[in-house]
Amino acid sequence: MQFLSDNAASVHPAVWDAMRQADQPDAPYDNDSLSLALDERMNALFARECAVLWVATGTAANCLALATMAQPHGAVVCHEEAHIEMDEGGAPGFYLHGAKLLLGQGEGAKLTADAIRAVIDPIRDDVHQVQPHAISITQASEYGRVYRPEEIAAIRALADERGLGLHMDGARFGNAAAFLDLPASEVAGSVDALSFGFVKNGAMSAEAIVFFEEGLADVARYRRKRAGHLQSKGRFLAAQIHAMLEGDLWLANARSANAAAAEIAGSCGERLMHPVEANELFVRCTPAEREALRGQGFGFYDWGADAARFVTAWNTREADARALATAIAAL
Amino acid sequence: MQFLSDNAASVHPAVWDAMRQADQPDAPYDNDSLSLALDERMNALFARECAVLWVATGTAANCLALATMAQPHGAVVCHEEAHIEMDEGGAPGFYLHGAKLLLGQGEGAKLTADAIRAVIDPIRDDVHQVQPHAISITQASEYGRVYRPEEIAAIRALADERGLGLHMDGARFGNAAAFLDLPASEVAGSVDALSFGFVKNGAMSAEAIVFFEEGLADVARYRRKRAGHLQSKGRFLAAQIHAMLEGDLWLANARSANAAAAEIAGSCGERLMHPVEANELFVRCTPAEREALRGQGFGFYDWGADAARFVTAWNTREADARALATAIAAL
Amino acid sequence: MQFLSDNAASVHPAVWDAMRQADQPDAPYDNDSLSLALDERMNALFARECAVLWVATGTAANCLALATMAQPHGAVVCHEEAHIEMDEGGAPGFYLHGAKLLLGQGEGAKLTADAIRAVIDPIRDDVHQVQPHAISITQASEYGRVYRPEEIAAIRALADERGLGLHMDGARFGNAAAFLDLPASEVAGSVDALSFGFVKNGAMSAEAIVFFEEGLADVARYRRKRAGHLQSKGRFLAAQIHAMLEGDLWLANARSANAAAAEIAGSCGERLMHPVEANELFVRCTPAEREALRGQGFGFYDWGADAARFVTAWNTREADARALATAIAAL
Amino acid sequence: MQFLSDNAASVHPAVWDAMRQADQPDAPYDNDSLSLALDERMNALFARECAVLWVATGTAANCLALATMAQPHGAVVCHEEAHIEMDEGGAPGFYLHGAKLLLGQGEGAKLTADAIRAVIDPIRDDVHQVQPHAISITQASEYGRVYRPEEIAAIRALADERGLGLHMDGARFGNAAAFLDLPASEVAGSVDALSFGFVKNGAMSAEAIVFFEEGLADVARYRRKRAGHLQSKGRFLAAQIHAMLEGDLWLANARSANAAAAEIAGSCGERLMHPVEANELFVRCTPAEREALRGQGFGFYDWGADAARFVTAWNTREADARALATAIAAL
Repeated sequence: MQFLSDNAASVHPAVWDAMRQADQPDAPYDNDSLSLALDERMNALFARECAVLWVATGTAANCLALATMAQPHGAVVCHEEAHIEMDEGGAPGFYLHGAKLLLGQGEGAKLTADAIRAVIDPIRDDVHQVQPHAISITQASEYGRVYRPEEIAAIRALADERGLGLHMDGARFGNAAAFLDLPASEVAGSVDALSFGFVKNGAMSAEAIVFFEEGLADVARYRRKRAGHLQSKGRFLAAQIHAMLEGDLWLANARSANAAAAEIAGSCGERLMHPVEANELFVRCTPAEREALRGQGFGFYDWGADAARFVTAWNTREADARALATAIAAL
Repeated sequence: MQFLSDNAASVHPAVWDAMRQADQPDAPYDNDSLSLALDERMNALFARECAVLWVATGTAANCLALATMAQPHGAVVCHEEAHIEMDEGGAPGFYLHGAKLLLGQGEGAKLTADAIRAVIDPIRDDVHQVQPHAISITQASEYGRVYRPEEIAAIRALADERGLGLHMDGARFGNAAAFLDLPASEVAGSVDALSFGFVKNGAMSAEAIVFFEEGLADVARYRRKRAGHLQSKGRFLAAQIHAMLEGDLWLANARSANAAAAEIAGSCGERLMHPVEANELFVRCTPAEREALRGQGFGFYDWGADAARFVTAWNTREADARALATAIAAL
Repeated sequence: MQFLSDNAASVHPAVWDAMRQADQPDAPYDNDSLSLALDERMNALFARECAVLWVATGTAANCLALATMAQPHGAVVCHEEAHIEMDEGGAPGFYLHGAKLLLGQGEGAKLTADAIRAVIDPIRDDVHQVQPHAISITQASEYGRVYRPEEIAAIRALADERGLGLHMDGARFGNAAAFLDLPASEVAGSVDALSFGFVKNGAMSAEAIVFFEEGLADVARYRRKRAGHLQSKGRFLAAQIHAMLEGDLWLANARSANAAAAEIAGSCGERLMHPVEANELFVRCTPAEREALRGQGFGFYDWGADAARFVTAWNTREADARALATAIAAL
Repeated sequence: MQFLSDNAASVHPAVWDAMRQADQPDAPYDNDSLSLALDERMNALFARECAVLWVATGTAANCLALATMAQPHGAVVCHEEAHIEMDEGGAPGFYLHGAKLLLGQGEGAKLTADAIRAVIDPIRDDVHQVQPHAISITQASEYGRVYRPEEIAAIRALADERGLGLHMDGARFGNAAAFLDLPASEVAGSVDALSFGFVKNGAMSAEAIVFFEEGLADVARYRRKRAGHLQSKGRFLAAQIHAMLEGDLWLANARSANAAAAEIAGSCGERLMHPVEANELFVRCTPAEREALRGQGFGFYDWGADAARFVTAWNTREADARALATAIAAL
């Protein structure tokens, strides 16, 4: 019973089907009919003009998006525990040609407009200090917390006031949308670009960068090729995205993962380090307790010395979630 | 009847099967059992200690390999019509942090040791000129020409003499091996790293970087992550490579493509701009002749004003090749 | 009697005086009164709104200027023998974050609009090929040839048509101006940025980047600091530039160097490989002849196997020039 | 009476003299006799094999040194208030091609081996997190604190244990040496490279990068040219360094600045935020007190809301220091 991560979960059957159907002659790169149909499909979802690029990883999505907003001599403000800061092997430094990450603080790995101000206000407006060019927020956050529309709006207002771009890392965008139960457009708010994640939610190897500013997408297309991310059989990535959007599979999968997490959360009580809004649980437990859980066949990561992280996925079985809930309750 | 390129051809059934079988729980990134088994598998093929990294594109493979050999202030010698110079959107400049490509000349888009000397000998050994750090050759070349073992050996000797790394772009390595009918080890010669291409030869989205120097692979692993090329469901890339190697499918596919090309070549006579050794044909023909061929349902690219390029693939049907051969003969 | 280069010649007494006078308390970096006065001074010279940044080297000037015009995924068109391509140790690759130099051909190391078209017209407008973002020309060229106003105008027209930036490497701008005997504004034409060289013309360590587009200068100010080129005692660089502009010393010095070159050229006849328009002479002569000249105390560089390069400077003595002229005539 | 900074102070007469004497024909770049004599001169000072490169700024010195120790995918550990982090406009990101700065904490802007361990020990040894490649310490620190030989030795031991390079930013190395009253070799300890600063200590525009590992210097020479920092009239930079070393002028100047600081410190009592070991004073005082001091003609920077920073220089007059001391005492 694996709760290690959603990042290596199985591929949804509908995704497999779409990929198989895509295995017919078509134009290479992103000139195939499936890739060409992505913009329109996302327009419908976001009720806003979109330009969509597929890539294979969230790291590539985040960094290609940010590279359109921050010049090499600038900086991106993000949370100090953001994925781009902690887990992408320095990819922002590579893709942004040495631009800096400026680290903000905030509960649940979420930034607020005030937290961002605390980072950028002390920066003198001169050439000796690196100036902020963009902000990146994560929906849902590294701790599974979800930004409410008004929180995003406040950050957007600050970004506009200071002339900064705004990017959303949506590796678990579906989980946030399932939690908020709001249209995708409100879950994203008015960001300039969204890394819309599918791999953690049932796809195999396709994430979408959704640009809400056509000019940014124009730059990103060159940068994607330059980064070796323009696959020649791109139709197989486009097919995955279409399958995930078809009939709102992305939402259904995310709801399923969230429900499993909620089931487990129900038995965690005071042990929870963060409210469970998406599909991740951070649970206080001693080494001995963790050993006990592992002894019962549960897989998960330690989170520091005194906690464990459990992640549910689109295909977490209800029975497994219940079993884990029971086991935790029994600790 | 498509002869546009092999880069968007169908995925081989055995590759599909292997991918489906890989759809079970395993560790993320390259810690799954399939990824972990790649080194040994390639060791067997090349009869030499190998360290293997999968990536999704040939551009990423080439540039990650070269980045381990050339420092940012150095240069890579390649043919003036090499893929890294002409068709990768400046990826070498990105991955090598501004290192330079030094362009050599040579028949059939092949370099010789002399051609490389002609490039590097005039470079003064001082800080004002960019110094060569590595050489990159393409097997088979952009014009479908194949390096013989002694040609590679001569280039290797020069590389050793000058302290340069040696990389082979093997986007069509299978086609070269099928033509030479020699063991993979001799087709690669003693290069330091090989971009072993599978996407043009029946895979979907997996290329292998085969390092014959462990130290280089150590660097490349960090750089792959940093470039956003470490997919979390990497087992699906590893599965493709295993399928291609299983029973030498890579060779069988390449032989099939080469045979189709040979069939067509047989009717081209004086029209051929380059001897056909792999799966590409560069055929002199007038605009009117091209129009005639297209009228008969043949798809291909113009090659300048007075020629056409035809590329066969692993799945080119014999009947289609014969039809094209007949049509060209009838021009 | 040195004719090796103008790049290490003595510092003009007026420059020394200005530097000594600058040795009094003032604000650091470029906030001192001398630095702040540069814009206005250049405005007067070029009869056009200017934003001026000092730097210590021509390489820094060229690359900082170009970095404002070409994005990392783009390219700069220059002559295949341009200084940025041949002699700057790969600095453009560094400053432009891997952008490419596209090499054009042309007599006397000068580009023409047609030569530029020959480079950029074959580039397919897609993401696989690096797109041109800017053009760089050298006034006077590496072979001491000077662009006429109408030649620059033709290149400007092409740049506008294609949306490209236009930069002028004016390491020997003074020599070009002295030859043309036209106002600086016509010698520069309507480029977007000029590297206005003083070091080869009597200064010690100050070159000016003159931006004719304020927006470009804004970027360059950050990039200069980021490149470690914002000296804290910048007043000593500004002082040099003021001294060179005062009473048109830059023109007087260049006229003197040009006159010395003309004196020598008068005795070279058919030996000249290029018409002498500035302060460089490329003179056909055998190894034996070069040995003879060196035996008479003349210092110069070999230029390939069968020629020599002589460079005059602001302080070349008339007698020395005459002696060299006589010696060449006597060969 | 200026106490704003030492970075724009006057140039010492001996430096002027040396520069004037250098104004005679010699080879360009760093091939002149003065540049060539630097290694030997520093060997004598540090009693250790040295390779010396001059550059115009401390930022260039720091970043060129670090670029030889940290690969683009790695990181440099420094204090969170280090100059490279706070005041160099992102230059490390540029010169190190996107490598990261990992920020440690410590009193007086000094790092300890423990503080460095606190930064690097939590980093998982995998490709997802940026690995440390080097450490940079500042002698004297941003708060004018000086590392004792045993403190450096402890950091060196840690660096060796972890395979990290060790760099010292010695923008105020002279002030540290004057304070410690120890040989330069002990003030530097066994770092791999030292940015030996002269500009804040009486020079005009010359800093030395002293490499104690020849292999690092070999790389840095190419990188210096590539960064546009190889001045053609380099002899004027070398001359400054020789003048500063001659008769230990660097030490005498630093002692003078330190003495002035000590004079002022004597009257600051409890107001001092940091012990005064070099030439900087951080003094608690209210806005009203600062206004009072400014009213008496003292120039200095505010340091946050409740403090002021005073910096003495080699040429601070004793009378001025005494006047400031008196004024502070009278607050």
